Parts: sequence; C-alpha cells; structure tokens
Amino acid sequence: MATAFEFRLLATDGAARRGEMSTPHGVVQTPAFMPVGTQGAVKGMTERDLRENGAQIILANTYHLYLRPGDRLIARRGGLHRFIGWDGPILTDSGGFQAFSLGPREPGRGSRVGVPQPARRRIAEDGICFRSHLDGSEHLLTPELATDTQARLGSDIAMALDECLGHPATADQARQSMERTLRWGRRSRDRLLWLRSQPPDAVLEDGLTPIRTNPGQAQFGIVQGSVYPDLREESARETQTIGFDAYAIGGLSVGEPIDAMYDTVAATAPLLPADRPRYLMGTGTPLDLVECVARGIDVFDCVMPTRNARNGQLFTGHGPLNIKNARYGEDDRPVEETCRCYTCRHYSRAYLRHLFLAKEIAACTLNTLHNLHFYLDTLARIRDAITFNSFERLRRTFHQRYSLRLLS
Amino acid sequence: MATAFEFRLLATDGAARRGEMSTPHGVVQTPAFMPVGTQGAVKGMTERDLRENGAQIILANTYHLYLRPGDRLIARRGGLHRFIGWDGPILTDSGGFQAFSLGPREPGRGSRVGVPQPARRRIAEDGICFRSHLDGSEHLLTPELATDTQARLGSDIAMALDECLGHPATADQARQSMERTLRWGRRSRDRLLWLRSQPPDAVLEDGLTPIRTNPGQAQFGIVQGSVYPDLREESARETQTIGFDAYAIGGLSVGEPIDAMYDTVAATAPLLPADRPRYLMGTGTPLDLVECVARGIDVFDCVMPTRNARNGQLFTGHGPLNIKNARYGEDDRPVEETCRCYTCRHYSRAYLRHLFLAKEIAACTLNTLHNLHFYLDTLARIRDAITFNSFERLRRTFHQRYSLRLLS
Repeated sequence: MATAFEFRLLATDGAARRGEMSTPHGVVQTPAFMPVGTQGAVKGMTERDLRENGAQIILANTYHLYLRPGDRLIARRGGLHRFIGWDGPILTDSGGFQAFSLGPREPGRGSRVGVPQPARRRIAEDGICFRSHLDGSEHLLTPELATDTQARLGSDIAMALDECLGHPATADQARQSMERTLRWGRRSRDRLLWLRSQPPDAVLEDGLTPIRTNPGQAQFGIVQGSVYPDLREESARETQTIGFDAYAIGGLSVGEPIDAMYDTVAATAPLLPADRPRYLMGTGTPLDLVECVARGIDVFDCVMPTRNARNGQLFTGHGPLNIKNARYGEDDRPVEETCRCYTCRHYSRAYLRHLFLAKEIAACTLNTLHNLHFYLDTLARIRDAITFNSFERLRRTFHQRYSLRLLS
Repeated sequence: MATAFEFRLLATDGAARRGEMSTPHGVVQTPAFMPVGTQGAVKGMTERDLRENGAQIILANTYHLYLRPGDRLIARRGGLHRFIGWDGPILTDSGGFQAFSLGPREPGRGSRVGVPQPARRRIAEDGICFRSHLDGSEHLLTPELATDTQARLGSDIAMALDECLGHPATADQARQSMERTLRWGRRSRDRLLWLRSQPPDAVLEDGLTPIRTNPGQAQFGIVQGSVYPDLREESARETQTIGFDAYAIGGLSVGEPIDAMYDTVAATAPLLPADRPRYLMGTGTPLDLVECVARGIDVFDCVMPTRNARNGQLFTGHGPLNIKNARYGEDDRPVEETCRCYTCRHYSRAYLRHLFLAKEIAACTLNTLHNLHFYLDTLARIRDAITFNSFERLRRTFHQRYSLRLLS
C-alpha cells in the first residue's frame, strides 16, 4: 500500500504556515506552487527542466486528458505518472472549471469575435453537460465521472467536482451554486469511498468498477460562496462535514477586485482545519502568492508564469519586464542579475528578445524556465522566511519592490 | 591571435576519411554533422541540449541574421558566439542560398498556393538583388557584403558567395553559373584577404573597414557545375587556384536523382586537396551521409533531422517512424530501445504521439533531441568505423537496415 496522504505543520509566522505534505509520489514542502501541465505537459518544459527549477508537484487538467488521449488509455499505460514521465506528486483538477469555461459567454477570447457561439455547456443537477472543444462530442461530467476519471489517471490528489461561479454573482446565485457544490462534493466523496471499499482484485475495469492506478490518492473538497462571508463560512463548515483529506478555496481570481479576493481568503482560511493543507485554486501574481501565504494558504497553482512567458513577460524581483521591448535589443545583461536559472546564467536580454521576435521555439522554453524559476524560488524564500520568523520582512520588501509595477 | 584553421587527416578506410578540424572555438572530429541554427538557434534546442547530444559545430544562416537582428547589432554584442551563447565552432553560409531561394518559382511551399508571387530576387553580375521576406526592403548581396557580414558575425568558418543552381539545368546554364561562382569566389577571397591585411587597430567600424569579431575566421570556396563532370572538374581546379582554406561541394540535393548526386560527389571529392576538409552542403538523409563519407566527404549540414522532427518523423536504426501514426497510441516502448538520448531514456512513443497531436511545444523539443542524437551518433559510429577499418561493414549494415524503408 502506498503512503497515505499526510500533512505536518512545521512552523508558523503570523498566519503564514510552513509545512510538509506527504503523497504517494513524494513529499511537498509548503507553501508550494504547482506549475500547470494542462495536457500532461507543462508547456515548453521537460521533466528535467521542472526538476532543475525545483518543481515539487505539478497540476494536470482532467478535462483535457479525459478528452485526449483519454483517461482509459492513460490507465492502460499504468497511470498518469508513468505516461508523462513525471514520478513526483501530481494534483488533478476535477475537469469542472474547464467544462464550465466552455459555457455561455460574450464573443471574445477563444471564440470568433463578433460571431455568436452556441452554448457549449449546460449545468444541471446531475452534472455539467458540455461539448468537446476538439470534436464537438457531447459529454456529461458528473461528480462520479470526475472521481472515476481521476482514479484512472491516478493523481496523488484528486479534486471534488465543484461549480466555479464567475464574478459578479448575486447572493442568491452564489448560494445556489455553493449548495450545488456541497451536493456534488458529497457525491464525489461517496464515490471515492465506494471505490476505496472495493477489494483489491476489483481494481480492474469491468464496466462497473473503474481502474484505480494510485490506491493512495487523496481527495480535496472545495469551498465556494463567491465574495459573501456568510456563504463561505457555511461552505467551509459543511464541506468539512463531508470530510475530505484536505480543502481548497475555489471561485476566486475570477474577476473580483483584488481586495475582495484577499478579504475572502483571510476570512475563509482560518475556518479550514489547521492540520490539513489549504489550497487556493488558480492564483495568482507573485504578490498574490505572498499575500495569500500571509493569510494562511499552503498550496497554489496558476498559468501566469508559463502563459506570460510565452507572451514575453518575464518576472523579476523588481517587477515584470516585457522582453519584446526595443530597449532590450542591445542589453547584454541577463533577465535578472541575481537569478540562478539556466536562462539567466546563459543568455542575454538581447538574445531572448531576438528569439522572441524571430518566433523561435527556444524563446518559449527559455522564458518559461525563467518564470517558473522565479515563482518556485519565491516560494522557497517564503518557506525559509517562515522558518526563520522573518516572513513579514520578506513580505514588506516584496511589496515595496513589486506591487506598484506589477499592479499598474 | 586565435588558433588558425587546421585540418589533420587521422585515418582513411577506402575513400572514407577520419580527421580533425581545428578552429578558433575548438576542434571538430570529422566526419561531422552540423545542426542548422537558422536564426542563431537550432529550433527547439538550447545550448546544453546540443552539447549533450554531442554537437561539435553548428551552422547559422547569414541571410537571416543579416536581416534580423542584424550583423552589426551582433558585432556590437561581441560576435555571434557570445550573442547566441554557443562557444563552440560555428560555420556561416554566405546568405546566397536563402537569397536565391526567394527567387522566381512556382507557387508552392512558402508562397500562397495558386497566387503568382512577384519575383523576390534578381541575379546580376554584381550580386543577388533580393527583397527581405520580413519587410520587403531591397538588398544587394555582393561577394564583398557576404564576406563583410560574416566577418562581423565572426563565425569560425565563412563561405564564399556562390550561385546555387537548381535542377535541372542545361550545360550552358550550368557553365555560366559555375563561371559566375568562380568570379564571386575570387571577389569573396580578395575581400577577406584585404580585411585580414588591415592593421589590428583598424578592426573597428569606420564606414570602410568592417568589424571582424573573429580574427581566426577561415573561408571555404564552393565548387559548382551541376551534374556535369567536366564543369565540376573545371570548377574544382579553378576554385583551388583562387586558394581558400578549404572547399565545399555546392549545388547538390537540389532535386537531382540520388545517383546523380552520389556520382557527382564521387567524381568531385577526389579533385579536392586531401589535406583539407571537404564539405558537402545541404545533404541529406542518414543513408546519404554514410554514402557520401564513403566518397570522401568530411563535413555535412542538413535541416532534415530538425525539420522532420517538427513534422513528427523520427529516425531510427531501422528506418524512420512517423509518431502521428495510430499504431503508436498505446506503444510503451521508447522511439528506439538502444538509443541513449534523453527522449528515449525517458519517454514512450505513446506519450510522444500524445504531445504531437496535442501540439505541445515539448513534442518539438523531444523529437528534435532524438533526431539530432540519431544523426550525431551515426557520425560518431562512422568515425569509429573508419578508425578501426570497419567502415564498409558499417555501411553495408546501414544499407540493409535503412535504405529501402527510408527511400521508399
């Protein structure tokens, strides 16, 4: 039997927490940032790039892998770790957020501008009915399917299916959505407990019992409730009543003002058990990470470092720089003098700008290497600061150097 | 003063030669293959990927770097080596082939199909007049400009400007073109000798004397003459009369039948000095490399391993495989069981197929790593075989395993 999921709190500094999260594929030092490997690959990175940069755990998207190459195919390969060649911890989301993102919306990003798009998803009590972005095929993502799919993938941490509401939402909408998330959470948990109750020799696809490629898989519940403190409080309480291995805060970084995000995190984190890791989903800027650690968060994920790298935005301790800018055309300095990533040890801004303008693939690789290094190194420094009780000093320094330029 | 260009012949096996080519940035064991770094980057690779795969020398395209970011900008950065972060040997072409490729042609690859394109280049006695593919600006590439540009880039080996004729060409066309190449070769050489004669304190841009960022730069002349033995013979003789540091065979792999290519190489190589390396430009398949080593060639370059990798074609000792193919969807084996590249040590065909279909950037990186490893490892095995007088056995084995599947 693989290692069960465990969390040890090692130190605190104010509300900031330093911990250690054990999973079947290894230990994660927290606070931790998870690079996003949407389709089973962190874009532009290989396994050794991630290792070199200090990645401890990565996130993979169930929606994408379910559609292509298919969770059953991955299960036949022995599970996601073996398939993608990453033997460290993996967290999978439930697929709900991506399926939800296909839904009714204004023409814009991802749809042809000005052309009304047919709704690609419909939310009902049973689950989310969506059309594949690949071939238009119809699928119904239920809590049970989300749980089975993640069991087949065999991630170390699976997420319960939730409804991720956008911003703004009325209190009524937020309550209905939060209550549905509770019902879906209960069903997700029941399904996982049932799967766990199956005898070992039933761990074969028979049309009823899905393959579980990682018997030690943990499952996190998700707290919703938009920016309404009473709903968040109720959601935190009732989600814990269901009883998950740990808890996440969802439904933030979806367009709400930054203060509402910080306030909601500050109000919700203390309602979650102190002896379990707290995961803030889909956040955020480097400053957001520092600010949410200060409010008691342990685990983060975000596409920002990887996506922005591909758009030429590079993070530094003095704010981001856009490598496209003409001022870097003859700049022989590295992106950041003090950075120890391969990109900064080896290449100049002038060359990185050339690669970007020339649309060279290496631009993506080298920019992503740097940005992930910046994020992962920031978390390493945060961990040290908490250990040595100097987190508030790090936070102030970070704020002074970073916030105005990043947020402007 | 940097190391002068030198070549030592270490062993022969039939017409196959094992040698050592010294350049200001290091020694190249020959026969050698040069990965192509068109815009100052081998597509999808970083410097350490190339080193790990055993790349000894890379090729960069003068045409592309002249247009973007500009050879003067690169000279101000200290030259191409420093700019691109590669401190090993570099060969630059003259820019002629790319400028030539812009010329009158059938609608097809690189132009909008079915839409007649205005001629983008015109060849006159003075040089090649071409329009930039980036902004349409007009440029006149003369032998003097090609030489000055490469002096600014500071490659270890520069190429004289030649006219690269397509196939088929009449004997008359081939003679005119070959004779022009001789005149351009003379002018290229005269320009380099004049540059070399300038006092060291004139090695600064003053409007007249171009910057030379690599005082030890060598220059190769190019033998033309299409598939006509008498023209090749005359070109080989007269190019040597001009007196270059070494010689290349140009104008092959441009559409002629494979036997005509092999025959021309077999007839031309022995006409070149035995104590200088012989470079066959723009060739070819793995089998071509073996067959042309057997005919006395020492140095190769080709986009095939890198370009085909991006299209999903992977080379193996038993012929190429197309990773898109459905048969690899559940194939847990590496691309090649015996291959020691990072891709084969770490990833399965099933995962590489998934990355390719999902259009992940890592597909390009991992496929390119493998193909370059295959090419560079093939050359390393060829070098061993020549040293141990077993080249003919290697050639036969290679032929049996490889030729039918590759050429079919």
